[in-house]
Amino acid sequence: MMQQILDHLAAGQSRSVEQLCDYVRIPSVSAQPAHKADVAACADWIAGLCRQIGLETGVHPTDGNPIVLARTPRRRGLRRPHFLVYGHYDVQPAEPFELWESPPFEPRIAGHSLFGRGASDNKGQHLAHLKAVEAWLQTGSELPCDLTFLIEGEEEVGSGNLAPFLSQKRRELHCDAVVISDTGMPSRDLPALTCSLRGVVALEVRLHGPSRDLHSGIFGGSLENPAMALCQLLASLRDKHGRITVPGFYDEVRPLSRQDRRELARLPFNERRYARFLGVPDLFGERGYTAWERRSARPTLEINGLTSGYQGEGSKTIVPAWASAKLTLRLVPDQRPERMARLMRQHLKRACPTGVRLEVEPGHGGAPYLLDPANPLADAALRALKQAFRRDPVLLREGGSIPIVNDFKRVLGVETLMLGLALPDDNPHSPNEKFDLRNFADGMRLGALLWPELAAVVRPA
Amino acid sequence: MMQQILDHLAAGQSRSVEQLCDYVRIPSVSAQPAHKADVAACADWIAGLCRQIGLETGVHPTDGNPIVLARTPRRRGLRRPHFLVYGHYDVQPAEPFELWESPPFEPRIAGHSLFGRGASDNKGQHLAHLKAVEAWLQTGSELPCDLTFLIEGEEEVGSGNLAPFLSQKRRELHCDAVVISDTGMPSRDLPALTCSLRGVVALEVRLHGPSRDLHSGIFGGSLENPAMALCQLLASLRDKHGRITVPGFYDEVRPLSRQDRRELARLPFNERRYARFLGVPDLFGERGYTAWERRSARPTLEINGLTSGYQGEGSKTIVPAWASAKLTLRLVPDQRPERMARLMRQHLKRACPTGVRLEVEPGHGGAPYLLDPANPLADAALRALKQAFRRDPVLLREGGSIPIVNDFKRVLGVETLMLGLALPDDNPHSPNEKFDLRNFADGMRLGALLWPELAAVVRPA
Repeated sequence: MMQQILDHLAAGQSRSVEQLCDYVRIPSVSAQPAHKADVAACADWIAGLCRQIGLETGVHPTDGNPIVLARTPRRRGLRRPHFLVYGHYDVQPAEPFELWESPPFEPRIAGHSLFGRGASDNKGQHLAHLKAVEAWLQTGSELPCDLTFLIEGEEEVGSGNLAPFLSQKRRELHCDAVVISDTGMPSRDLPALTCSLRGVVALEVRLHGPSRDLHSGIFGGSLENPAMALCQLLASLRDKHGRITVPGFYDEVRPLSRQDRRELARLPFNERRYARFLGVPDLFGERGYTAWERRSARPTLEINGLTSGYQGEGSKTIVPAWASAKLTLRLVPDQRPERMARLMRQHLKRACPTGVRLEVEPGHGGAPYLLDPANPLADAALRALKQAFRRDPVLLREGGSIPIVNDFKRVLGVETLMLGLALPDDNPHSPNEKFDLRNFADGMRLGALLWPELAAVVRPA
Repeated sequence: MMQQILDHLAAGQSRSVEQLCDYVRIPSVSAQPAHKADVAACADWIAGLCRQIGLETGVHPTDGNPIVLARTPRRRGLRRPHFLVYGHYDVQPAEPFELWESPPFEPRIAGHSLFGRGASDNKGQHLAHLKAVEAWLQTGSELPCDLTFLIEGEEEVGSGNLAPFLSQKRRELHCDAVVISDTGMPSRDLPALTCSLRGVVALEVRLHGPSRDLHSGIFGGSLENPAMALCQLLASLRDKHGRITVPGFYDEVRPLSRQDRRELARLPFNERRYARFLGVPDLFGERGYTAWERRSARPTLEINGLTSGYQGEGSKTIVPAWASAKLTLRLVPDQRPERMARLMRQHLKRACPTGVRLEVEPGHGGAPYLLDPANPLADAALRALKQAFRRDPVLLREGGSIPIVNDFKRVLGVETLMLGLALPDDNPHSPNEKFDLRNFADGMRLGALLWPELAAVVRPA
């Protein structure tokens, strides 16, 4: 039976790629109000596909973008394990457009890669699961469990409406575990179960100086320059070796155990090749930790954007009226986002000079996550990974944040299995995002093989 | 005779204002290539006006924007004193447009003010001189000297083509002094001769990090963040009290004499009112100096603009590929621009971290200037100011830079008399630039009264 499902998937591969292209073509950028209609159209598109597959599908409005729910047909009277498969149909902004080798919303296939914004993060990954379930249904095979797909449209802007939705649909979404494919694997050879994620805290810092841009010759010297004040303020957040200097920042960090560090050291990593891949002259970061530890298991503070004064061609001799920065923190267990945001605000307030006025705008946030590798579900997932990819899988810590994993735990009381299909060079959030079509195929295999394994270790509730 | 000229000017005031409006309407922004044609049209417009006044006028091409030369008719065989009147028809960029209360290139009169980009800097100011000479010519009065107007189109981008032009026309432009109205007066009650200007050095600093924007969750922590590196690099240029920390920066500064400081202390100044005018919570700057000293007689370092990463709405969780800053230094006697640019480059190179690549793009530069107040031309100019404004004038140091004043000294070997008509709230280089129409009228009076005074103290060459 399983072979029939896998054969069905293999036979339908080119059709699946076509569907992924159609999906990527929709510029569902949730951060930009100009794409509001595209986001709505994208929800309708994926709901349509779910219905076509044979799922009972609804598009649920929220205070933000709609959430798509799609259930496998239930068998009356039969209580089976129930798993929730999560994905998001929204994508990151595509700017800067000029760095794309082909337009971000015109999918292009080159070699094994499909290029386009959202191909890997996250359209390709959850589409693989949908196609796998389609294969179960179209071959007339009986699923060993009930499945509900939850595909939302605000992951890239913090999933603000998801937790209320989960609370509201708590009964219907009651399940044994959540499955998400929105993380990565270290290489094509290393399928991975991600057991840890970093949390995130976003904020925007703005310093207000004079009421308008001023002539720097006539006035310069008599007032604080907001851009310089911002540089000095931001410079005070981190030392030159990458260690964050905000008081209390590391207080809640759970130290890495010897075993944690041994697991991470097993992963293939070549510093020089990695630096070349990033395009930087040198790697950099907190002393005493390897690059892999720093990017996945240690907290960071990043400036995501700077804005002040004149940015056009040539020069404009002004003291700018204001300066602003977008910041994100990445948190590790057991740092709490609310506390970290408070520490940041306190430090910024304390360090802000008197010649400017500080404004801190809080952004989205999410706690870090850790799944106990001894959980039987983890073992089951590793078995499915091994069959799907025909390789031994690894346990991974990931540096990215999927804040909603914590919502699933808090609201639904369940753990999340993260079975990522992205490769390290997929360029999510960057120009030239791509998805490896071999991983798309193996991801569909995984989506087929997973359910018997998971169902076997779960007692129906 | 003089009364007749002044009456003629008074009678023609509304026509003069109309002409100024026409002039301001031309968006001659030299920093922006998109305005190239407007800049050329502006040169033609002012040349047309010069011809109409009765001046022998030519529009001279340069490697950049054209220079307009317009001479009063010469009397054969008569050697008279010769003065050069300088102005510039180009203007600063008008961005940010949304902060203008009326469109920058649609002049609007409210009360005594004419609002529009370039009204004060510098179209209104040199137009006053042209209108004064028109009055001399139209009343049939005989000027006591020869005059040449030189009106260029690259002052706001560093006047790069002016010095070569002066060298090339050295013979024709040989003169006894240069007169420029492109500075300010402390208030309507205080006409001023500016005897000192600050120099300027512009540069752009760019730090290159990864070859593209990277996901800050997946990669953050393993590489230097160019925006943070830029903040730390720029923060190292100045301490928190406004003192510049670039080694050697103050070495060449000529200390202010007791008399210098006494003169500056005479000027009317109310710290609280000034802070309110600027719209800042507090004044700020180098310890041990008054605000007036700091803005006119002490060197400064200003950040004019910052650019990095994502600047749109919402957040984008990236490590940006690069970060850049536009900087200007203001220099005082006897700091040399080349040396200061070198010191900056050296310091930046030394302080730049290894995880990013530094690029420093040099911009325009100009030396500071000092006119000896004991020069008889200074006295003559003060007398004309007193008559034109019916008030006692002051000797002023100005914080702005007019690099070409040094070119006049170097190439033509003459001093420059700076008789500014701008008021402190004229907002040059800022939104809502304006020109006071009473100063426009008094400026025309000055332009009429000046020549007998100056001619009297000069021996024909």
